[in-house]
Amino acid sequence: MAMQAAFAASMFPQLAQRRGSDRAVVVAPPPPAPARVAMRSGGAAAAAARGVRCRASLIEPDGGRLVELVVPEEGGRREAARREAATLAHRVRLGRVETEWLHVLSEGWASPLRGFMREAEFLQALHFNAIRGGDGAMVNMSVPIVLPLGDAQRRAIEASGARRVALVDAADRPLAVLSDIEIYKHNKEERIARTWGTTAPGLPYVDEAITNAGDWLIGGDLEVIEPIKYNDGLDQYRLSPAQLREEFARRNADAVFAFQLRNPVHNGHALLMTDTRKRLLEMGYKNPVLLLHPLGGFTKADDVPLSWRMKQHEKVLEEGVLNPESTVVAIFPSPMHYAGPTEVQWHAKARINAGANFYIVGRDPAGMGHPTEKRDLYDADHGKKVLSMAPGLEKLNILPFKVAAYDTKQKKMDFFDPSRKDDFLFISGTKMRTLAKNRQSPPDGFMCPGGWKVLVEYYDSLTPSADSSKLREAVAA
Amino acid sequence: MAMQAAFAASMFPQLAQRRGSDRAVVVAPPPPAPARVAMRSGGAAAAAARGVRCRASLIEPDGGRLVELVVPEEGGRREAARREAATLAHRVRLGRVETEWLHVLSEGWASPLRGFMREAEFLQALHFNAIRGGDGAMVNMSVPIVLPLGDAQRRAIEASGARRVALVDAADRPLAVLSDIEIYKHNKEERIARTWGTTAPGLPYVDEAITNAGDWLIGGDLEVIEPIKYNDGLDQYRLSPAQLREEFARRNADAVFAFQLRNPVHNGHALLMTDTRKRLLEMGYKNPVLLLHPLGGFTKADDVPLSWRMKQHEKVLEEGVLNPESTVVAIFPSPMHYAGPTEVQWHAKARINAGANFYIVGRDPAGMGHPTEKRDLYDADHGKKVLSMAPGLEKLNILPFKVAAYDTKQKKMDFFDPSRKDDFLFISGTKMRTLAKNRQSPPDGFMCPGGWKVLVEYYDSLTPSADSSKLREAVAA
Repeated sequence: MAMQAAFAASMFPQLAQRRGSDRAVVVAPPPPAPARVAMRSGGAAAAAARGVRCRASLIEPDGGRLVELVVPEEGGRREAARREAATLAHRVRLGRVETEWLHVLSEGWASPLRGFMREAEFLQALHFNAIRGGDGAMVNMSVPIVLPLGDAQRRAIEASGARRVALVDAADRPLAVLSDIEIYKHNKEERIARTWGTTAPGLPYVDEAITNAGDWLIGGDLEVIEPIKYNDGLDQYRLSPAQLREEFARRNADAVFAFQLRNPVHNGHALLMTDTRKRLLEMGYKNPVLLLHPLGGFTKADDVPLSWRMKQHEKVLEEGVLNPESTVVAIFPSPMHYAGPTEVQWHAKARINAGANFYIVGRDPAGMGHPTEKRDLYDADHGKKVLSMAPGLEKLNILPFKVAAYDTKQKKMDFFDPSRKDDFLFISGTKMRTLAKNRQSPPDGFMCPGGWKVLVEYYDSLTPSADSSKLREAVAA
Repeated sequence: MAMQAAFAASMFPQLAQRRGSDRAVVVAPPPPAPARVAMRSGGAAAAAARGVRCRASLIEPDGGRLVELVVPEEGGRREAARREAATLAHRVRLGRVETEWLHVLSEGWASPLRGFMREAEFLQALHFNAIRGGDGAMVNMSVPIVLPLGDAQRRAIEASGARRVALVDAADRPLAVLSDIEIYKHNKEERIARTWGTTAPGLPYVDEAITNAGDWLIGGDLEVIEPIKYNDGLDQYRLSPAQLREEFARRNADAVFAFQLRNPVHNGHALLMTDTRKRLLEMGYKNPVLLLHPLGGFTKADDVPLSWRMKQHEKVLEEGVLNPESTVVAIFPSPMHYAGPTEVQWHAKARINAGANFYIVGRDPAGMGHPTEKRDLYDADHGKKVLSMAPGLEKLNILPFKVAAYDTKQKKMDFFDPSRKDDFLFISGTKMRTLAKNRQSPPDGFMCPGGWKVLVEYYDSLTPSADSSKLREAVAA
């Protein structure tokens, strides 16, 4: 109950902020009417009643209620939390990826997790891709959400008998308090093997966040001092699961279908999303809403950066390829593992918590090339197969991707028709990137012109300058 | 129902055979009384009634009924199956490990599996350590039970459109028919990484059964032509789950506690088993029966071979260290993975199917040294932790091993008492093997004298002969 009230209180400043920068791509909620404000601030009972009223048609979050770990603003509680954090003897510094996970946890994407994993949760994630909740039911949880700790700090914390530690950013500012802590071994080899199904060198997430990380992990319950912000001009797209649920309820969505992506949207994607909505309408839903949900956390060096992708997605909606009326664009704050069938479960599970009851899954989701062999790391079909069988995802409707390709006769992207397969041209992500890098145009109808222009601009921005090593790093592979 | 009747029919010859070689260590069931025979051959309804009567107090097999895949003897059905197998165009030859798995599957240790895994089962085993049954319930299944296939044979089978293939032994004799087949990729790296949590070279099972195996897997439903026999003088110990259930029912066991082992039994083990029975009696059980269940399939080169272990176990019972009245010794036909927390689940799950509702788990179950690093491959506590949380094992009572060590004051094995820790001596498996190899005696009370003598005889039998390479192979560590 406290959390519900906390959420209602903490959400309003963000909504007000979003109104200021209203864009076509995100149809912001209207200003809250006084009556609703009154009801929302009417205490726990009213908040609960409101919860039932607004969200009756949305899928239930994992564990039955959405976890929200940001300290409520009222009563000076954030200031008090910040002061307490500053007094704690132990301060664990978070890197970029750990901060992204803090963000993920703070908003309940990983509900019912209430903090970085303790060992029991870590082992269940590794072995079962699922965690048993307090009620005995299994919720899906396929990737470890853990916080590494170096040996010196481990010994200091254990020697002091501390039960609470502060989590701080690169500038030593307190971000959160981790309490009732548990420290356990970070067996990196086993974690990597069980998560990726390989231990080959060169896995991007491993290089970024595991290889040089501490040999211990520290788990516990989180109190996050204030909402995580990036101040990169994109925070208004970073809607929490609670905010997304609010938005879907406001639109009276009776079905929400999520599309996870980390690439520019081409007309094949758009066709798929449009077609999905059509199918849902045919199934009898009155108002299916699309959650177009680009991943916003860590990605590998040769993926198109988030800011450029967001510009590209904006064009796709501006130019009418997707309908803004039935589309919500928001950023999913998770870092990317590139762990294929293991990770696609996390991508789906997190969207349940955001209110999605349909999930579109394509060929080789969250996959990549094998880092040391000339083949894809995962079988292209395993992602959707594993997703369809995953424990804890039974309530989610999985919508397998139909294959779209460029129809050279119709000059547009269309669903592949094997009976006239020679008419179709498959344009891979690599091919697309190569065209854009070389300022060449793709065939008409592959992508809306404004979206393509953004891509070309992005690659132009990488043109070798005095510091040519920078280019090599940014577009490696 | 057909299976129940089939089981009753196929079991009798084995029981008769066992009576001929009755030993103290296995208290064989009495000869079947005419009344029971009449009832058993009274058709499906009678068989079902009998099943309820005899097994009411035993734990239910996974999937609700025990799978039995051996073709029934009556009506010449085995001969017909053998003839059919001989006519099939495709014959897949089984190696030692695959034949052991055929044995495991044929008797229902892996119930509800009805054959080598198809891809959906393989993926669930790898990712979730559990498989969803037809009723939607999860059953535990942590190791892949699969049959590799070479590329040439894969192409030949696929080109022919065959739906059934014969499985044959090294001498090309048909063992089984695999039907409604499915062929899929054998991604060895991914299988190894997800099963063992490492891809380091030198894992014994990988070297034996994966590295040189085919790049494809073939799954399907099995009909096994006749019970698998080894003709090594130990077949009478190889009781199927159905036979074990029959035996526990005959003894009116109201609790069955299983002890998996692949090492000689010392008095610390014996203390643990005796103590467990005492605890179960204190809990109110009237007749807890111990299933002392050595693993009989593939083991690594430096483990003591099955035949010597069986001689040693026999002495342990003969010399009264364990009570034959409340002990059933039988061989578990599975090959050994040495996959630690992943494999211990398989060891436990298979014993549910054999009627055990309590499972004793020790330190580092199914573990071994890391093949390339100077450390244990698994954390010693992970096995029991993972086991206690594993999906599909909720109905099994996990009994964690208390640590036993040699008490130098009392001159016997006893539970370790940290308050006088200097009195205790820990004798590792390596230490035990070294003593026996060097014909030295362990401290009095470590192992019964007859059992120790067997061990010394085993190592004596390895004394370098003209062919000294054989010794190195057999005791390679």
